[in-house]
Amino acid sequence: MRKYKGHTKLVVKPGSTEEVSKVLKYCNDNMLAAVPQGGNSGLVGGSVPVFDEIVINMSRMNKIRDFDEVSGTLVVDAGCILEVADHFLAEKNYIFPLDLGAKGSCQIGGNVATNAGGLRLLRYGSLHGNVLGIEAVLPDGTVMDDLSRLRKNNTGYDIKQLFIGGEGTIGIITGVSIQCPQRSKAGNVAFFGLENFEKVQQAFRAAKGQLSEILSAFELMDGQSQDLVHRVTDKKRPLEGQHPFYCLIETSGSNPDHDSEKLESFLENVMGEEIVSDGVLAQDETQIQSLWSWREGIPECLGHWGGVYKYDLSIPLPELYKLVDDTRERLTSAGLIGDDEKHPVVGVVGYGHMGDSNLHLNVATRRFDKEVENKLEPFVYEWIAKRNGSISAEHGLGLAKKAFIEYSRSKTMIRLMKQIKELYDPNGIMNPYKYI
Amino acid sequence: MRKYKGHTKLVVKPGSTEEVSKVLKYCNDNMLAAVPQGGNSGLVGGSVPVFDEIVINMSRMNKIRDFDEVSGTLVVDAGCILEVADHFLAEKNYIFPLDLGAKGSCQIGGNVATNAGGLRLLRYGSLHGNVLGIEAVLPDGTVMDDLSRLRKNNTGYDIKQLFIGGEGTIGIITGVSIQCPQRSKAGNVAFFGLENFEKVQQAFRAAKGQLSEILSAFELMDGQSQDLVHRVTDKKRPLEGQHPFYCLIETSGSNPDHDSEKLESFLENVMGEEIVSDGVLAQDETQIQSLWSWREGIPECLGHWGGVYKYDLSIPLPELYKLVDDTRERLTSAGLIGDDEKHPVVGVVGYGHMGDSNLHLNVATRRFDKEVENKLEPFVYEWIAKRNGSISAEHGLGLAKKAFIEYSRSKTMIRLMKQIKELYDPNGIMNPYKYI
Repeated sequence: MRKYKGHTKLVVKPGSTEEVSKVLKYCNDNMLAAVPQGGNSGLVGGSVPVFDEIVINMSRMNKIRDFDEVSGTLVVDAGCILEVADHFLAEKNYIFPLDLGAKGSCQIGGNVATNAGGLRLLRYGSLHGNVLGIEAVLPDGTVMDDLSRLRKNNTGYDIKQLFIGGEGTIGIITGVSIQCPQRSKAGNVAFFGLENFEKVQQAFRAAKGQLSEILSAFELMDGQSQDLVHRVTDKKRPLEGQHPFYCLIETSGSNPDHDSEKLESFLENVMGEEIVSDGVLAQDETQIQSLWSWREGIPECLGHWGGVYKYDLSIPLPELYKLVDDTRERLTSAGLIGDDEKHPVVGVVGYGHMGDSNLHLNVATRRFDKEVENKLEPFVYEWIAKRNGSISAEHGLGLAKKAFIEYSRSKTMIRLMKQIKELYDPNGIMNPYKYI
Repeated sequence: MRKYKGHTKLVVKPGSTEEVSKVLKYCNDNMLAAVPQGGNSGLVGGSVPVFDEIVINMSRMNKIRDFDEVSGTLVVDAGCILEVADHFLAEKNYIFPLDLGAKGSCQIGGNVATNAGGLRLLRYGSLHGNVLGIEAVLPDGTVMDDLSRLRKNNTGYDIKQLFIGGEGTIGIITGVSIQCPQRSKAGNVAFFGLENFEKVQQAFRAAKGQLSEILSAFELMDGQSQDLVHRVTDKKRPLEGQHPFYCLIETSGSNPDHDSEKLESFLENVMGEEIVSDGVLAQDETQIQSLWSWREGIPECLGHWGGVYKYDLSIPLPELYKLVDDTRERLTSAGLIGDDEKHPVVGVVGYGHMGDSNLHLNVATRRFDKEVENKLEPFVYEWIAKRNGSISAEHGLGLAKKAFIEYSRSKTMIRLMKQIKELYDPNGIMNPYKYI
């Protein structure tokens, strides 16, 4: 995002949990600040040494420790890259229950530390449910071995949950055990154009009702996001003509014939009822990848002009897209959007995980501009607070949203969180001045 | 279980979160112990005032607060009975993501406080993943309003998770918001007899592979559990002849024809490969209920002779049933099992949630007998510790297992848990001398 710049004199690359423990104990004893770093794919500055923190880079701890083919329980080092784990699982007919655009570089420890949501939360649920155990090192060097492989274990407070989404502020995750579902034999992807957001909601309700247990993703992209992807990549669009909204629907199931039948009857329904204006169904794996690229390629394409203001928000579904309209109107009336170099903003787009009520509001800019930022913040956060939404759905707080947490959390909750931070990290050495 | 007896001079029945707050603040200011009580269906003495605690009974807080038909998010008072919520959801074509035998009396607040697992965890996952928000009152009367309705919300430590499975030791849950899945249009139940536990495991692997996304329960019952149910109820058995093991398989899906086809091909496979010895498929809702009664009726039937020693355990699948054999052998060789009054033990049975590696080891007795107890404990816990299992899979610790937690948790974990208890309840008024 070109927003945060790191300053550090020291990067350590521990090769074992014991080494992490020694490093942290030394930091704690000598009051040295440390920042854990995974694949460095975060968007909120959480893993950047913004002051002079020692970077604890986890990339050497990248082994798959164990996999049980009957139960589907995978145990990995925190530094294992998500895609590496998923390829390993593919060979065993299992799938990692999390998938996101950065899979080729992000690490599982980082995914868990930031409670990454991604593309298939709709189907496989959140990491709070899927992670069975965590091994972590506390700031004083204590190794917390809670690497359970059991699906059910009700013996005391579920402390590992504090590390899921804890963003490396109370310890460093060194190992993770996770429940992996079986890989589906059949996968289909459909891509639709729709007239308005009301129809997108209708299509979502129809997909939930008719595709039900085989629905594995329901992604939303607005027309402007697709225009910008098209401008950057110059690829042939999946559909003739242009539409105000697009959806990508993915199904995964165990029986290809059954899945096709369900999908066809869904298509008949949404075409017949004129819920969707146009649609295409991928015929092979290449087409599946090509359709996904119109969704997954958005973040990279938006960066083409310079910087991007990114907001990752949870909003009640009926109002999900209204924020994009309101923001666009706000920047337009301030005269900040335009096609030439004089205007800082290239476009305001919305896309995201419709199935989880999770919108990514992105403002593509030619340069970072204080006037644009002042128009966006706290406007966006106030808009969210009014609707009881979340200012960080899946990206976390990091440094970017530390100052804005009160828009999503009450004073009481913030006080309780600070207690936790003080309990685990009384010297405040872990990722200081970020998070809460 | 006739194991714990309550002693209290005062039961309070608050009608609102504010009243719970006032009661707890008074208790805390005056150093009075309190025990929260839901439907009183727990098995570990967690909600029994074993000393002279003030009982805080939640039954008056029994309203459904809100339901969103698009997202499936349900918000309820903690005292709402599970079955009441599920019936409410059924009318909207949704289902509560938790089901268990005690559904007619247990309360959702109690379910969440004990992190209940139940029959469909295999399909819908754990409460740590499904609960979206919690409203709770802390021991000092602080109302923790974390009743988020958002599927994704990464803004700080997920503190509500400590209350899921916290067994009322750090506060009282007063409200819950939970993600509910759509109710399936089709439901099928099959019941099998099998020769040995190796074949049960084969059947489970086949069910996971072939029924995949429509598999919603895979329950195990041993031959002796079914013999005892038969002796008590005198009902006609589902299958001709008797078998060492039985399984109940449930499917839930959106298309009755597709589900039947999947189930038929699964049946052909397990019959053809002689994985199962005999089987029956329910033909209507009455038969579905009747087959389920052979599983759900076990706990009640076992109580017929007097008391039952109950162990709720997580064990790696290959050794899951070995514990039942080992325990039976141990009690037999001690001369404690027999058909007449002279012998304290009627039988040793095993059943449970195969899909979650969760075994219920039950010892049906004519009377509580110290000699039996001494043979069982710590034997069972040592057996579990050796296999890295859990001494409490889904029932919790309560008073029953407080002394045995070190068989499932390390000293470090217990220390971290005690820190949490001290942080939230420095006066130790909440459910004292239980849990950790």
